[in-house]
This record gives sequence, C-alpha cells and structure tokens, in this order.
Amino acid sequence: MNERQRIAMLARVLSRAVPGVTVGIGDDAAVLDGSGTLVWTIDEQVEGVHFRRTLVGFRDLGFRSLMAAASDVAAMGARPWCALCAMVVPADVDDATLEDIATGQSEAAQELHAGVIGGNLSRGPALSLSTTVLGRCQRAIRRQGAHTGEGIWLAGHVGLAAAGLRALEAGRGEEPRLQPAVAAWRTPRALVQAGRAMGLLATAAIDVSDGLACDLGHLAEASGLAAVLEEAALLEDPLLAAAAEALGASAIELALHGGEDYALVATSAAPLPGWRRIGQMREGRGLALRTGAGERPVEPLGFDHFA
Amino acid sequence: MNERQRIAMLARVLSRAVPGVTVGIGDDAAVLDGSGTLVWTIDEQVEGVHFRRTLVGFRDLGFRSLMAAASDVAAMGARPWCALCAMVVPADVDDATLEDIATGQSEAAQELHAGVIGGNLSRGPALSLSTTVLGRCQRAIRRQGAHTGEGIWLAGHVGLAAAGLRALEAGRGEEPRLQPAVAAWRTPRALVQAGRAMGLLATAAIDVSDGLACDLGHLAEASGLAAVLEEAALLEDPLLAAAAEALGASAIELALHGGEDYALVATSAAPLPGWRRIGQMREGRGLALRTGAGERPVEPLGFDHFA
Repeated sequence: MNERQRIAMLARVLSRAVPGVTVGIGDDAAVLDGSGTLVWTIDEQVEGVHFRRTLVGFRDLGFRSLMAAASDVAAMGARPWCALCAMVVPADVDDATLEDIATGQSEAAQELHAGVIGGNLSRGPALSLSTTVLGRCQRAIRRQGAHTGEGIWLAGHVGLAAAGLRALEAGRGEEPRLQPAVAAWRTPRALVQAGRAMGLLATAAIDVSDGLACDLGHLAEASGLAAVLEEAALLEDPLLAAAAEALGASAIELALHGGEDYALVATSAAPLPGWRRIGQMREGRGLALRTGAGERPVEPLGFDHFA
Repeated sequence: MNERQRIAMLARVLSRAVPGVTVGIGDDAAVLDGSGTLVWTIDEQVEGVHFRRTLVGFRDLGFRSLMAAASDVAAMGARPWCALCAMVVPADVDDATLEDIATGQSEAAQELHAGVIGGNLSRGPALSLSTTVLGRCQRAIRRQGAHTGEGIWLAGHVGLAAAGLRALEAGRGEEPRLQPAVAAWRTPRALVQAGRAMGLLATAAIDVSDGLACDLGHLAEASGLAAVLEEAALLEDPLLAAAAEALGASAIELALHGGEDYALVATSAAPLPGWRRIGQMREGRGLALRTGAGERPVEPLGFDHFA
C-alpha cells in the first residue's frame, strides 16, 4: 500500500464514534468540543529502547503504546477521551504488520472507552509510536500536594512487568508461572477506574512507569516530603512473589525498581477504595524502606534515557 | 546531563505562561481549561526523512517542527494554543544541541503566541521530533465543503521551500538570490493570521505540506469536485520566479509539486483578505491547469512515504 492507502486502512481499523469529537481522522486536525478540565500527555515507544520485536508482538505493541500514554491521564484522576498516534515505520514493516499495530491500538482504545481520532504516518529508520492522549476530569490530581502523615496507596502491581521482561529476555516467556508477569509487561492496563476512585481523597498521584522508587521519588520531591515504604506491604503481592521465585530474583528489588507496570501511587489520609496501603509520607527528603530489621534508605533509581 | 537534568533544561528554555493552561511541564500530564471548540494535530519530523543535519541547523529544526504542526491548526482557521513535544534523541546529540532545538521550538511558540507545555524525552537511533498542537477557534474549516464556482485562494508561497531545499542540496544555499527560498524551507511560518482571515467566508481549507497539487487534490476529493488552477496566477510570485531561474528549474513544476511551504489554500466565493486567487472549483474530479495554450490535467503528486 502507498501512504494514502495505509492511512485509509488505519482510519478503517481505528474508526470509532467518540462523544464530543466533531471531526476525526481525515482532516488537517481533529475537532473537539473541549468544555471542562482537560489533561493532556504524549508518550513515545521506540524500537530498541522501549521494545524489541522479538519480545512483543505488533498487536500488543500497539495496545501497550496507547495504554502507556493513557496511564498518565489515569494518574491525574482523569478519563482518557481521545488519542492521536504518530507512527514512524521502517521499510521492513509491511501493511499487515501496520494493521496489527493499529488493531492493538484500537483494542486498547475500546477498552478505555476512548478513540484514536487522528495521527501521522512517516517512514523512518526504526519503528516508533508517539501517542498523545487527551483526558477529562473534574479535578486534576498532581504530583505535588501530599501532606505529612498521609498514607501512600498503590493500585495495580509493581515489579511484575519487570519480572515479565526478564522472563522474556531469558527465553522463559512460555513458563506457566511466569505468564502473569509476561502479560503485565506485554499488555499493561491504564488504571482508569482506580484513578477515578481517587475522587476528592487523594492529595497527590503519579503513575509508575520508571519504577516505584523513581516515580514515588518524583511525587515526594514535588511535595517537599519524604516517603517511607513498608517492605511487608510490597511483598504481599502473590503474583510478584511467584514470578520473583521462578526467576530467582529479589521481589523487593523488582517492586522498588522495576518499571513499565503503569501502576498508580497516590497519597491520602483516608483509604482509597480498591487500593493497597504501602507506606506513609513524613517530613524530610528522599525515600526509605521499613523492614523487620529497621529502616534503610532507598535510592530513587529508575530507567534514565541518558545516564 | 542525565534525563532529569535534560528535562529541567527543556522546561527552563520552553517555560512560558499560557492562558487557560493550569499545569504545564513537570507533571504526568498538562492540565487545561478546554472550553470552546478545539482542533488538535500531531506531526513528526524524522532525521533522514524530513531533514538532514547538513541542511538545517538544530535551532531552525526546532522552529520548523513546531511551525509545521501549527500549520495544520492554522489550516482549520484556528489559533495555536499550546503544544507537547516528544523528542527521540540519539547518543550523538549533546546537551547544547538539545538546548538549541528547544530554543527554536520556544522561538516558534513565542511567534505563535502559544506555549510548549509538556513532552517526552527518549533516546533512540535517529533524531525525531513529534509535535502535537491544540488550537482554538469559533468554527473549524474542513477539507470538505467547497462548492462549484468558488474561487481557489492561496496564502503564502508554493514551490519556494522546494527551491530552497534544492539549493541546499546543490550546495548553493549561500547565494543571495536563493536566500528567500532557503529561508522558506528552513524556517517556515504557520500562517495563523491568514487562517484567521478566512473567517466565515472560506468553505474548505488545507495546508500545503506535500505540494499544492497533492493537497488541493485532497480538498477537491473531500469536496467531491474538480479544481482548476491558473498558471499565470501561480507564476506571479517574484520570489519563486527568481529562485526557479537561479536553479534552472521550472517555476510551475515547483509551484504544483514542491512541498514543505506550509502555505494555505482555501475555497471561497468572495475574496479572502490578503489571499491571492489561483483558480476555481468546478464539477468533476481531479485537477487541471489552465495555461495560455488551454488546459492540461495535473497529477496530484506529492511526497509519499511508502510509494
């Protein structure tokens, strides 16, 4: 297919009516009725950096590219509304592969009750998917705003996706007990319902894309406070425990520093419905882990594209 | 600089207060007051496809990446409001170069009275800039909607940027008489004022990124009509004539098929203030060029990423 035919195919795969969207794919720009508070993000998945084709299928790749971007919207307490997807496509990506990617994007959009309403298509040296998502909310929950004494709450898993990536890299992606971890890495979910459940209770929130220590570190720094995590609470996850045991890996290291789970972490004085309490905010700076043997500092290490 | 330091530098270079923007760079997502009609686009500039470093400086590259995306917003008759920029940065792009790119983006944003309010930063094999722009308008002017008998109107130059690219490729970018063409390619402007001047008069509009014949072809097809261009009107541009003569190139071929000018073309029964009339819509399909010797068909050829 030429560019025009490819765009027509993408429009067909991605087409979906979205309330408030007046014009979707096929014009210079999409047209929206923007009334209310909007949150807006862009995320990019680059071949050789965020994924390798040997580890993830193209349909899953499309799915995860949209979910990863939507996760930023969920972390603000907003509902994903619509997305634009810019794809850079090298010569060895054929039409069927491109359709697989779009199918995964479309599946993610449907699961999110959102729509892909435009994008851009370009050739280039490596496959790359840029996804921008607009979301709507009553009140956007920022990284800053946590108070001393508030609980630290977690929605979703931390460390599981990193365990899944390790399993795939070790060629053990087919082992049954590693399946939940592999799925966590390949087809993450933006935790929109959990984000909405923050309601008026949460004072600060962030999504965990680079690892809990790294991202909670951002929240703590933005709020001018320290965060103390409870080791026992982080180890309560049976899926993480099983994957770590199968891999001979440290569950607590995976939980603290494993990325790409797209879990949500928030601070709140009161329990957040459906979330787990994993620690507490206090005066000071930095992160600590409270274990049976006392407390130890935790470095806010995560993935750094340029370190 | 590591990733965090680079993001802080980008935030400093790009920082700018934008009305209606509650949260800018530094959170999971930007937060906006979206009231009214919004138009939304994404564009991508990929090294080796849209530019080569030998032909454009990094500051101009940042400038043109934002202008190219904003042009889609201008073509809908909207004002650019704010932008997110996702950059893929290879290892050989140093901190100063990244700052140059951001400086160019910032200059373009200031010229547009818009703001860069977020983005994403990733390493990758080739430099790539994805820019998504939100604009605001009273009424979005689409590609469809032209009527038989309406004039075809042009704002800006067509063919001049392609002449500039040819000059650069031939190592003649320093010749004085080719300067306007080189500037048209290196630092294009989104024609926001011209777009706003369409007001309630224009029935359809598109920006000319892939060449006049190609993009007007999209408009004609979307409107279910044919477009007839006047050769004499297209040749009235003295800057194009001078550049074509200097290059020994055909001015009409440049005007019809040269891309990356980011001119605007619109249809209207009445004159559009500040625009030039270059033809007329009529029943039928396809494009034609009316010359002194009669009429000839024009192929809607333009740049195709996958042809």
